[in-house]
Amino acid sequence: MYTLTMTLDSAARTPMYEQLYRALASDIRAGKLAAGERLPSKRALCAHLGVSIATVETAYGLLLAEGYVRSRPRSGFFVSDFVTLDVPAQTKKPPEPAHPAQPVPDAAAAGPDFSTASVDVSQFPYASWARLYREAVCGHPELLQRGERQGDHALRAALCAFLSEYRGVVCTPEQIVVGAGLEYLFGVLLELLPPEAVCAAEDPGYAGFAHAVSAAGRPLRLLPLDAGGLSVRALEASDAAVAFITPSHQFPMGLTMPADRRSRLLRWASEAPGRFLVEDDYDSEFRYLSRPLSALQGMDGAETVVYLGTFSRSLAPAIRAAYMVLPPPLLARYHALPGHGMSTLSRYEQHVLARFLNEGFYARYLRRVGNVYRRRREALIAALEGIDGVTVSGSGGGIHLLLHNPRFSEEELLARAAAEGITLRGLSSYCAVQPPQPSTLVVGYGGVRDADIPDAAARLKRAWE
Amino acid sequence: MYTLTMTLDSAARTPMYEQLYRALASDIRAGKLAAGERLPSKRALCAHLGVSIATVETAYGLLLAEGYVRSRPRSGFFVSDFVTLDVPAQTKKPPEPAHPAQPVPDAAAAGPDFSTASVDVSQFPYASWARLYREAVCGHPELLQRGERQGDHALRAALCAFLSEYRGVVCTPEQIVVGAGLEYLFGVLLELLPPEAVCAAEDPGYAGFAHAVSAAGRPLRLLPLDAGGLSVRALEASDAAVAFITPSHQFPMGLTMPADRRSRLLRWASEAPGRFLVEDDYDSEFRYLSRPLSALQGMDGAETVVYLGTFSRSLAPAIRAAYMVLPPPLLARYHALPGHGMSTLSRYEQHVLARFLNEGFYARYLRRVGNVYRRRREALIAALEGIDGVTVSGSGGGIHLLLHNPRFSEEELLARAAAEGITLRGLSSYCAVQPPQPSTLVVGYGGVRDADIPDAAARLKRAWE
Repeated sequence: MYTLTMTLDSAARTPMYEQLYRALASDIRAGKLAAGERLPSKRALCAHLGVSIATVETAYGLLLAEGYVRSRPRSGFFVSDFVTLDVPAQTKKPPEPAHPAQPVPDAAAAGPDFSTASVDVSQFPYASWARLYREAVCGHPELLQRGERQGDHALRAALCAFLSEYRGVVCTPEQIVVGAGLEYLFGVLLELLPPEAVCAAEDPGYAGFAHAVSAAGRPLRLLPLDAGGLSVRALEASDAAVAFITPSHQFPMGLTMPADRRSRLLRWASEAPGRFLVEDDYDSEFRYLSRPLSALQGMDGAETVVYLGTFSRSLAPAIRAAYMVLPPPLLARYHALPGHGMSTLSRYEQHVLARFLNEGFYARYLRRVGNVYRRRREALIAALEGIDGVTVSGSGGGIHLLLHNPRFSEEELLARAAAEGITLRGLSSYCAVQPPQPSTLVVGYGGVRDADIPDAAARLKRAWE
Repeated sequence: MYTLTMTLDSAARTPMYEQLYRALASDIRAGKLAAGERLPSKRALCAHLGVSIATVETAYGLLLAEGYVRSRPRSGFFVSDFVTLDVPAQTKKPPEPAHPAQPVPDAAAAGPDFSTASVDVSQFPYASWARLYREAVCGHPELLQRGERQGDHALRAALCAFLSEYRGVVCTPEQIVVGAGLEYLFGVLLELLPPEAVCAAEDPGYAGFAHAVSAAGRPLRLLPLDAGGLSVRALEASDAAVAFITPSHQFPMGLTMPADRRSRLLRWASEAPGRFLVEDDYDSEFRYLSRPLSALQGMDGAETVVYLGTFSRSLAPAIRAAYMVLPPPLLARYHALPGHGMSTLSRYEQHVLARFLNEGFYARYLRRVGNVYRRRREALIAALEGIDGVTVSGSGGGIHLLLHNPRFSEEELLARAAAEGITLRGLSSYCAVQPPQPSTLVVGYGGVRDADIPDAAARLKRAWE
């Protein structure tokens, strides 16, 4: 008689009938029970295995339902004509991952955190945030149902009012698309552009847009910066139709784009149909030397600029809300787009954020955390500039700055800092070609603790003097 | 003297200095203040406008900071050499949207809801869900920080245990990628496949995958079904390397794919390198005629199948959590992928869902809502089959069924139902070519109220008899 490959375990969490079913299905797939072969009678099998008749009946019923076997009245169950697989399934273990999932860094163990991705959430208003969430979950059952494709109107209206007041953005809620993360929105945006449209990005620059363009298999040009930001001469000499820029606080150089450069870029966009500027209003929330500059989007009557923003740096990395303001030609294409049935952003998060904006929590929070960053920036600059040879630039806004020390190469600066337990990142790691400045590091201070600054500076002093 | 185009409003919410700055910047951009022209002296302008000297100083300071003007010591402020734009910005209104945002349908006003997208949330455990959210927000400040790229390990471990126990999926948490919405995951998946890889989808079928393939500018083949699901003959005759299938409950035909078809598809995938099956385990949570069938993924040792699932039908449309289980070759490519720095899914939702799975809320909820659907399905089938000429198929699982009535064409069935106030959808709207069955409608019952079924059936009887 046919013998089961698998042993059954009456103490296991999986029911016996399920175990028996899986064992038989596996053996059928592996060809151990051949096509046309008769299964053991139910009584014989239950006696053989010491299980109840109900267990065998249920397992056979499942095999029948799934087409593994056919039933012939008064004859029993026969294995179906079945394409066997070379590799029996149940004997294989799930594969080991090629890389382990990257661990979340432990700030305490890893030394001071100078990553440009880190932000300070010590001032985050947990109690208010939790109350708004609780009210959303308990008081708004409709938030479990399908929401609007572009994001719920309440959030889009709140964003529109906020962007108009604080950033000079000219738009209506109907132009806003809300999604989870800028990377997702880049994907949507690229769907709105013709496949042959060449996209340009800043070099050095934020890698997210360039990755999205490459991942979509679209043509990409990396263009150099000059003192005003993206080089207009390089842009005009290129075949690009779309240019991604960070005018408020260029990443990573920290430049703020002056008005005439903004105007020249808008002029470029207006000179041929189908040209667009993608303005990532990155780090516009924090300015230390002057008031935040208005968005470029508000300068052109909103015809050629796609405006993008997120809350992941101004509020917290895990707040996934990102938004884009589409100019009318792209909005029309968005409406014609199939798919994208519902915003990727949680409707709870949408609801809570709308109240957070409308009820003034967000503006108050920006002031509070802005003051924390302002003090930390001053302390950090003073400490760094106390090291012989070190100067600082690009620190007028945002939560990172550039550190220059011409006494060593970039590589030496990094190696000597690492030997003192300080992990930093060089400017060249953000550059496709030569970095525009030698011996330059990019230092984020969103995640560093105020108390750690003196010791970190002392260690860098030892490393570099 | 130069006269401001804009009038200032001391009662407005925008500060006076900001209004003045905007007015001057707009006039400079429009060329009303020409390059090289001297701005009015601060004292002259404040006298002229009746504002304080501080207001004018702040506005001039902003213009200087942004590069609109240059300062010459003891001479005043001069307009920069500036590229003027043909269209002055501030006079333009934001554009009207091409289409209004689609309204969320009002179920009460629109008649019974037979949409296949609707689900019943009347049994949703609000109190438990809200408690888990509150505990996440108040008790886990770390959830504001950056999470793992593939989704937090706790959720991936909970999914892994659930999928293994309930769906026979063979995987480790390291193979799971969590994101917001299937559409987003389709985008990630396509990045893992070579650009030339031809993707096949079922016709009729779920449009989301086909849209994602087309949006990415990749080659797509729509292949016919037969009684067992996706036609193996058509697949073998095509040049496809990737096939998207819905074996548990084919959408919209409602078929369950028998074991030998599954095996034939796995054989196809194993016959050439780079072939993959994308198994959307759509609607596997609800079965009425037999126990849920195991996932196809578990049959092949997880080598060639990408397994996909969501909570948006089993739990609620606004729960955005979706997941995919990658086979080892694609997992290795995922690890090598740039970008996608953090899961698009809210970490709160990840945390709450992990507890929802681990603490048994989800399994209990599935039983409860499954019973609601089971009773509704029986009542609906009985009511529909009471109409002369009507038969029902594809109703063994999920929350939709096919309605057949050969007495009229599909078009006539829809028009006559609409005249009685019942909105339905025809099978041909899901088909790229001819529908496989004539006179067939696709009827969802996730969103219909039990109490509305008798009246809806009476109206359809009037419409069709």
